[in-house]
Formats: sequence, structure tokens, C-alpha cells
Amino acid sequence: MKPIKVGLLGIGTVGSGTFNVLKRNQQEIMRRAGRSIEITMIADLNTERARELAGDSCEVVNDGNLVVTHPDIDIVIELIGGYGIAKDLVLKAIANGKHVVTANKALLATHGNEIFKAAQEKGVMVAFEAAVAGGIPIIKALREGLTANRIEWIAGIINGTTNFILSEMRDKGLDFATVLKQAQALGYAEADPTFDIEGVDAAHKATIMASIAYGIPMQFDKAYVEGITKLEASDIRYAEELGYRIKLLGITKRTPDGIELRVHPTLIPEKRLIANVEGAMNAVLVQGDAVGATLYYGKGAGSEPTASAVIADLVDITRLATADPEHRVPHLAFQPDALSNLPILPMSEIVTSYYLRMHVEDRPGVLADVTRILADLTISIDAMLQKEPGDGETRTDIIILTHQTKEKNIVAAIEKIEQLQTVFGAVTKLRLEELS
Amino acid sequence: MKPIKVGLLGIGTVGSGTFNVLKRNQQEIMRRAGRSIEITMIADLNTERARELAGDSCEVVNDGNLVVTHPDIDIVIELIGGYGIAKDLVLKAIANGKHVVTANKALLATHGNEIFKAAQEKGVMVAFEAAVAGGIPIIKALREGLTANRIEWIAGIINGTTNFILSEMRDKGLDFATVLKQAQALGYAEADPTFDIEGVDAAHKATIMASIAYGIPMQFDKAYVEGITKLEASDIRYAEELGYRIKLLGITKRTPDGIELRVHPTLIPEKRLIANVEGAMNAVLVQGDAVGATLYYGKGAGSEPTASAVIADLVDITRLATADPEHRVPHLAFQPDALSNLPILPMSEIVTSYYLRMHVEDRPGVLADVTRILADLTISIDAMLQKEPGDGETRTDIIILTHQTKEKNIVAAIEKIEQLQTVFGAVTKLRLEELS
Repeated sequence: MKPIKVGLLGIGTVGSGTFNVLKRNQQEIMRRAGRSIEITMIADLNTERARELAGDSCEVVNDGNLVVTHPDIDIVIELIGGYGIAKDLVLKAIANGKHVVTANKALLATHGNEIFKAAQEKGVMVAFEAAVAGGIPIIKALREGLTANRIEWIAGIINGTTNFILSEMRDKGLDFATVLKQAQALGYAEADPTFDIEGVDAAHKATIMASIAYGIPMQFDKAYVEGITKLEASDIRYAEELGYRIKLLGITKRTPDGIELRVHPTLIPEKRLIANVEGAMNAVLVQGDAVGATLYYGKGAGSEPTASAVIADLVDITRLATADPEHRVPHLAFQPDALSNLPILPMSEIVTSYYLRMHVEDRPGVLADVTRILADLTISIDAMLQKEPGDGETRTDIIILTHQTKEKNIVAAIEKIEQLQTVFGAVTKLRLEELS
Repeated sequence: MKPIKVGLLGIGTVGSGTFNVLKRNQQEIMRRAGRSIEITMIADLNTERARELAGDSCEVVNDGNLVVTHPDIDIVIELIGGYGIAKDLVLKAIANGKHVVTANKALLATHGNEIFKAAQEKGVMVAFEAAVAGGIPIIKALREGLTANRIEWIAGIINGTTNFILSEMRDKGLDFATVLKQAQALGYAEADPTFDIEGVDAAHKATIMASIAYGIPMQFDKAYVEGITKLEASDIRYAEELGYRIKLLGITKRTPDGIELRVHPTLIPEKRLIANVEGAMNAVLVQGDAVGATLYYGKGAGSEPTASAVIADLVDITRLATADPEHRVPHLAFQPDALSNLPILPMSEIVTSYYLRMHVEDRPGVLADVTRILADLTISIDAMLQKEPGDGETRTDIIILTHQTKEKNIVAAIEKIEQLQTVFGAVTKLRLEELS
């Protein structure tokens, strides 16, 4: 059979990984796909470097437009990133009848609806396994492996940078700023780490997973996004004393009122397998009504792990391109005319458990005041930790774990607690998920 | 679109789960598959019970032949089990142009080559996600999610019964026979647990995984199979002292000389995520050259978890049936004309690390004799544990962990060690995998 010809937009870390793996495992991949898959054209601004990496085996250009309009190209891989030129080229590739593979979570989470609509109309595939959790085939699991299930919730460690930072903070008892600097020195965090540490990257990925889990349009603008920059070493320590680990989770849940979609540092019981995912690794826990909990673990970033997902998409497209479009696996797991308009809940309406830390005067009655406020709002207490004040100090920390309640109740309670004369400064609030 | 009509052979635990989940999640599944999937015919010897479970919605017969030859049936689900009538009916369904979904690992591991050949010739699909690790979509991950990779090895906890028994033995310090009885009382082990506890079930599953990981025919007859019946509580305890857990693993490895395919109790470092998979849960760890290690975890058995996999296959077939057969996902992940004849290595040629426990006279020189034997066979020692003899006893246990060596070397060493005057009884040998 004729080889499948692939055009690559951007030959950076993932692009060169894709090029190399495709070359190294050419025979293995052909044995699986039934035909050869070849990158025949590369667009990159740095054409010199691109030529160095690719050798003479393919054409190198500096303008992506030449790739997406080239009549010989069957599939376009978009690895440029961002929303600007990447979006233009993806839409142009689709308009030209090319199938598209992309690792661009930011693009899909924010402009996915437009892109998938265009692909649907044109009858081409847009595949994006690499956009969530790198090499872990989580998109395939959600879209195909768990089709029997009503997905109930997903909780994922889907940003390696922040998981590395949190693991180091716990291991070494260091604070966020110190570990961030180390992570940057080691290449685990970028020079501008904002998207990672503020939770934006994880929210892009959670948005995509919510869409294919429930059959809803991409709605990144409605996601709640809280990063790890304000997390203190003491919270990690107190959580540990109570039997919990703190992880930055991307969470999406189906409730009778709508969909929860949120990213924030989360206490999870240390006995859960996912609590023991350390360093830059990723893991996604999925709860389905028939299968129960399944977990998917692996490298969420890096050149070859991400390339593994990109190439899996190439093989999928190669295999499925001849199925009539109505029978292909739908882009968003559900048929385009069967998407649901379940609303994304505002954060005030989500239901979870909480960790509260407050700095208080160490004298009788303080705890009574705090617990009274919680009780008045029907928030019940699951566990408590009261530290002894240091030598010569009269103030101490109280940590309270609550049972499940609505976020707006806990916000109201914190407002009242902070007004107490015996409570100093702001109350620290973290969310807690049992994941069972 | 016309509904897909499904015939079900056997409505026991998994069959009734499949029937119920398909009914309960009908809308959700239709939104995904693009058309309705309906069980319209059920064959079971107990027609009365079948009618009770299925209600009036479908025809119940007592002869599977009526299902596999019925002109209205598109897909046949085989949940009879075993190699006899199940094989006949599967082959007959294929001959009649039906696609087949089966959870029958024993059938595929032993007669899969014949079945897939027939399916290939007839242009129908045979899907078997439910045959390995229940609801975990591990077949899909290997066959589609990791197509970019040269798979290097797989190690899986793929039998829930034995993992439950091992977890209980460790937790409670009980011996095998006691825990087996408890497991039987709780329904975690069958009345005749032979296939589970002797490792046969795990070997069936490992055989299937090896086939789709490397593109080789099913070769169950060449698998090495060792169960957990001879495992002693003391070995679990000693392993723990050394930082290891003992799990029954199905292992398959690609080596320059051929494929290792083996099931046996295995020491693994307690820090590995898979070492912490407890109770009846399953987990499969896959090492690919591009993606690195990925892990898949979930329920490996049970009515609805297994039904989840069966129905995922139904949806897959519904989606892909219109792709021309050459472009469908190949049954065994590799194109049928691209299977390789890599040999399965005899056990004497496999390479791994070992745990040796011996009962010895507690006096100087004994250890020197043992280590001399190991050194002569170029087996190097990684760790050692020598227990103090009990009060008034003159004999004690020595435990040795070796570095990697060939199985035949360790067998030769043990033969010599057992001949020492100061060593009493047989040397216990367990294999150890670092899984890194």
C-alpha cells in the first residue's frame, strides 16, 4: 500500500522525538499499521536546525502554509503550540482535507469547538492523544475503552512540573519558591512557569477530559483554576500528619445539577495509589459506573513519551481513514449531534471536603467559637489537629478537616471565623477528596 | 441508523452484567456509538433463569447454534468459557459472518491462532478486551495506544484471586491454606481454585498480551507457569524486611534471544506503584521504548467491570465495521502477514534476579561455602539477611538476593548448595524483578 505522508509543523522537543521514534521504529509501526508512515515535509522557522535533525529524507520549509496546502500530505501534525498561528494552520489543514494530529491542549481547550466543527464538516479526523498526560493513552481509554460507562468523575495529576515541585516540597520540607528554583535549574520547570504553577495547563487538560467524558463542548472559560504558588510547607506537613498527601488535581465530576470542572491543590488519602505518584509522573483516575475506578499512569511530558502519543494517533488515522466518517470514533467520544448542554457549575456550588488551617490564640473557648460557626452552617468536622504553641508563644495552629459541604458554605464560615478576635490573619482553605 | 443486533452466548455473571449495563446506559452508549446496540437473542442452558434476567425484550434459546446462525445477528458475545462448545460456536459464528466478542482467555490462549485465522479469512472482527484484566482497557492500550513503541516488557498482576490471597497473607501474617479458605468463603476464590492459584489463568492472559505486544502467535504451551501454592508466610515476611513485596506476576520480555513468557510469584520493590496494588485489584505495567513505563490499574474481574470491556468491544465493532478489513485494527495488533516467529525462551535461558532462602547450621563457614558456590557460577549477591537462631536452636534461615543471572545458573547453584552438610532441606527460590 502507498505510504501515508505526514507534514510536521514545528520540530522542537516533541517534533524531533516524533521524527526519531517514527524512524527508529519504522518496521514495528509498519507491521502494525499495515503501511509505511513517513514524515515527508517539515515546517519550522529554524530551517537550519530542522534540516540537521531531519537529514535529507524530507523537505524543510519555513512556512507552515506550504505544508497544510500540499497535495501530497495526508496528515498534518501540529506541534507549534499556542492559539495564534497554530489555530490558523490547523483550520487551513482541515479546509484542505488533511487529517490533523495535535498535542496543543491550550488550542483545543479554548478553540476546540470551532476546530472539531470544521473537521466534522470536512470529514477529516483531529486526534489529540498527546494533548493530555503525554504518553499515557488516556484519551483513548475515555473515548473508546470505557464507552460502556457513565463516567462519574475523573481526578488527574496532569501536570508534571507541579507534581515534581510538590513531591520535592514534601520530601525535603522545602518551601515553594526554593523548589521552583531547583526545578527550573533541573529543566523540570520553564523559565516562565506561570501556566504550570498557576494550574492553567492542568485546566486545559481537565477541560478536554470533561468534554470527552460527558459529551459536552469544551468550556475552558468556566473552569476553576487555582495553582500551587500559595501552598505552604506547613500545609504539606500537617496534611501528612493527618494521613493525606497534597497533589495538584484536575477534577471533573458529574452531579445532578451539572458538571464540576476545577483544578486546585487537593488533599488525598495517602493510601490511594494516585497519592503515591511522585516526581514528574502523571496519573489519571477515572470512575465509571460499570467498571469502577481505573487508573492510568506514566510520563506526562517529554520528547519521546509525547511522541508516543502523537504516533499512536498517526497509526489510528491510518487505520481508520477508510471507515465512513459516520462510523469513525467521534472526535469528542460522543457523536457531534449528541453533545449535551449540561452546565458547568460555578465554584460556589461544588461539593467537596475541606482542610482549614487557622492561626489562633491558645486559650480556652477559641475552638468552641470556631466549631460553633461550622455547626451553624451545618458543616461537620471529620478530624482536627491542634498544635502545641512553641516555647514562649501564645498562638498556635488549628487544622480542621470537614465532611463534604458546598463551597459557598465553607466560604461563609471562613468569613465569620476570620472575624473572631482570637483568630489571626487569613484562614487557609484547601479542598480534600477521598477519591473512593 | 439501524440498531446493531447482538446475540449473547451464556448469561451468567458477566453475561447478566453485560445485559444490565447495556440496558442501563443505553442512551449514553448510543450517544457514543451513533446507533443503538441491542441484545436481541440469548442462548443459555438455563432458559428459565435467562428469561427472568432478560425479560421479554429478547428471544431466549437453549442452543447457541441458533444464535450464531441467525441472519439478524451482527455480533456474537461468547461468555460460555472453556475450550469445547465455546470454540465450536465461535468458529461457527465467524463462518456465518458474525463479528465476535469474547472474554474467554483460555480459548484464545490455546486456540487463538486458529480462531483469528478464520476471522481474517472471513473479514470479521474478534474482540477480546474482557479476556485480560477485566475492565482495564489494557488490550486497547497495547494494540492501539502504544503503537509507536517497541514494547520491551510487560509485568502484570492479572489474577485477582491470587492477589487477594497474597495481600491477606502479608497483612495478617497467615499461611496460604488458611487464607485460601477465607477467600473461598468470601467468594474471592472458586470452589476449585486450581486455575487461579496454580497460575494458569494468569498465564493465559500473559500469553495474549505477549502476542499483541510483540506480534507473535499465541503460544500458551510454551509459557512457564508457577502458582502461589508453595509460598510460605516466612518468605513474604523476609521479602518485606528486605523492602520487597511478593506478587504473582505475568511477565513477558523481549530479549535479543527471544521472548520470555512466565508466571510466578515475584519479589518487587515496595516503592513501585504496582507493589501497592492490593486485594483483588489488577494492574499491568508496560515498558515501551518511547513512552517508558505506563501502568493500567482497575478491577480485573466481576460482573460489571468485565461487562464494561465486553461492551467497549461492541462499540468498537459498531464503529469500525465499515472500515475495509485491511484498514481495521488488526486482531493481534500487528498485521496478520507481519507476525514474527521470535521464539519463546525455555525457562533455563531467562535472566532475572533471585531470592534464595535456606535453612542452615548456625556456625562459622556456612555462609562462606554458600557464597563460594554462587561466586563460582558468577552469580553476584545484592543483599543478604541472616536471622538469629531461636532460643535453644542451632539452625537458622539465611536469605540471599542475587543480581541478574540465567535461571540455569541459579538452578546449578541450588543443586550444589543443597548438597552442603550444613544446609538442611530444599533451598527456596523465588524470582525478583526490579521493574525499572
